[in-house]
Amino acid sequence: MTALRWLDPPAGPAIELLDQTRLPAIEAVVMCTDVPQLVDAISRLVVRGAPLLGVAGAFGVALAAMRGDDVEAAAAAIAGARPTAVNLGWGAAQALAAFRAAARRADPVPGHNLGAQAALEAAWSIAAADAAASAAMAEHGLSLVPAGARILTHCNTGGLVSAGAGTAFGVILAAHRAGRLVKLWVDETRPLLQGARLTAWEARRAGIPHALLTDGAAASLMAAGEVDLVVTGADRIAADGSVANKVGTYNLAVLARHHNVPFVVVAPVSTVDLDTPDGASITVEHRAAGEVTSLAGQPVAPPGTPVYNPAFDVTPPALLTAIVTEQGVMQPVTAGNLRDLGVANGAVAAPQATFYVER
Amino acid sequence: MTALRWLDPPAGPAIELLDQTRLPAIEAVVMCTDVPQLVDAISRLVVRGAPLLGVAGAFGVALAAMRGDDVEAAAAAIAGARPTAVNLGWGAAQALAAFRAAARRADPVPGHNLGAQAALEAAWSIAAADAAASAAMAEHGLSLVPAGARILTHCNTGGLVSAGAGTAFGVILAAHRAGRLVKLWVDETRPLLQGARLTAWEARRAGIPHALLTDGAAASLMAAGEVDLVVTGADRIAADGSVANKVGTYNLAVLARHHNVPFVVVAPVSTVDLDTPDGASITVEHRAAGEVTSLAGQPVAPPGTPVYNPAFDVTPPALLTAIVTEQGVMQPVTAGNLRDLGVANGAVAAPQATFYVER
Repeated sequence: MTALRWLDPPAGPAIELLDQTRLPAIEAVVMCTDVPQLVDAISRLVVRGAPLLGVAGAFGVALAAMRGDDVEAAAAAIAGARPTAVNLGWGAAQALAAFRAAARRADPVPGHNLGAQAALEAAWSIAAADAAASAAMAEHGLSLVPAGARILTHCNTGGLVSAGAGTAFGVILAAHRAGRLVKLWVDETRPLLQGARLTAWEARRAGIPHALLTDGAAASLMAAGEVDLVVTGADRIAADGSVANKVGTYNLAVLARHHNVPFVVVAPVSTVDLDTPDGASITVEHRAAGEVTSLAGQPVAPPGTPVYNPAFDVTPPALLTAIVTEQGVMQPVTAGNLRDLGVANGAVAAPQATFYVER
Repeated sequence: MTALRWLDPPAGPAIELLDQTRLPAIEAVVMCTDVPQLVDAISRLVVRGAPLLGVAGAFGVALAAMRGDDVEAAAAAIAGARPTAVNLGWGAAQALAAFRAAARRADPVPGHNLGAQAALEAAWSIAAADAAASAAMAEHGLSLVPAGARILTHCNTGGLVSAGAGTAFGVILAAHRAGRLVKLWVDETRPLLQGARLTAWEARRAGIPHALLTDGAAASLMAAGEVDLVVTGADRIAADGSVANKVGTYNLAVLARHHNVPFVVVAPVSTVDLDTPDGASITVEHRAAGEVTSLAGQPVAPPGTPVYNPAFDVTPPALLTAIVTEQGVMQPVTAGNLRDLGVANGAVAAPQATFYVER
């Protein structure tokens, strides 16, 4: 994992986190040897991203159990570190359930903490499932990437938010390794600049030829014939195939259609929410004006300027070429195809992806 | 004028400039009592924008003449303050020509500087022509604004770059004064944030209800039915009607077409360049990576990240609802209509708008 490492004794037990708040300028780690340190790191966004927070939550419970702390209290504290990040609480609950089940059994080896072992196994299992889903999405998505591809992406979807290679970025990395990727175009992704700060960093680290652009420059790039494929992630997929994702995604989908460029969304099945009938049913979170009016503490607009700052936008299924999940490529994107996916996925372990807002 | 004031004796002779480098945080002026001060201010972008630089160049020559300086040297120094800003040298040359013509005549009133008077009159004349063009564009453009309009604009096109109310912003201001404007949506306009820094400031100053948004958020705003009209300026208009303007403009034009929102360009006839046959003939200037990779001195991407940073993009005529000039509304935008405009405008005084890149 790029962004999180579990350390066993004697170095641990500990969780080592890549400090994402200091990227891209500084690559530093934060070592968490107890739960309060982890809670602090999570709340400060040292670690972030829906799938990875699930992993972090589970390892946090395992850490508490290893230390002999009050595991119930630790799970509650971890879940409360970012109350809207549903995967975090879900991961902690999974590890807590494994701990309880093991603790109910008699401990046959005195001095051997079976509950802690069970919690740790649950955490590794969540990480492995996430990595496996990434690998499957990458393999399926690769089938949509032509040789010599120039791919445009938005926001941050790689190893910083996943225990594997991620969603859209996983496909991009697979295309790079398969020798099919000539250039990765990275949208800077205003207002929080996840593309500039994080995806450009990951592209460089992976040796992927890339260039950064402002979100408004993507249109001229497509007009120049420099984009063969747009690939993004998804925060939530409604039953009709509407995709909610980081603001600017729908912009790209309209541009891609105008320029006859395929537009592909990569997301795990857990992102599909059949209880949300369509795009209009998705509630859009509007975020603070300061994200737009200032940058790195510097004001870039008059103080008090009113702002329209939706966290995400909604792309209708008609603009999607395909949705790639760990189960395969859905093309075309239709309500029927999504329903089948939901049925096939009835026993999936991950939470129905509630609406996680990337920070 | 918002951004430039000429001061006669006894307060002057002097040119008082609103320091645009300190907006929006601080409203301060820079007083230029001699040409070196003016040259410094121009090169530091205290004053900017094609039409206003023409005015500033002419007043600068008048200032030199008033002071009894070497007027020829002063005109050359002013033109050299920003060599790519063609209007600047043109304005200085106009005032210099007036000075020379008057100086060739015998001075009938000893102690009375006829050359300086002529240069000053030339400067006022350029300012008046610019203001008159703004007023005419505003009047013509107003005919395209429905009652209760929500208008989206890009970059900065108002009184900070013009001796009048400007181009697109002039139409917006006229709509506001006519009671037809319900809301102005201001694209922040990455990378240099002219919308956030300057247009939001001008909107607030004019009492226009407005909100700022990231460039990538415009699509969701249109999908929500919140935009009735897009109005932008133009840097250059080719003979086929292709419009080169600040990067992100073409993005908006594609979005507007997808959402059936009218897209109107407002620009003086001098912007029409019949020697450039079409959009493909326009050379795109690519600017420094640092504009994208850092902001206000803070790095926002890994050092050395490659960047795609075109200064402008090109919108084809098929996406334009109309072009508004001081001569009227051109609708539809066709090569024939543009040629007629060029013919009608054969004796126009302003320079063929060479490609002025806004900073």
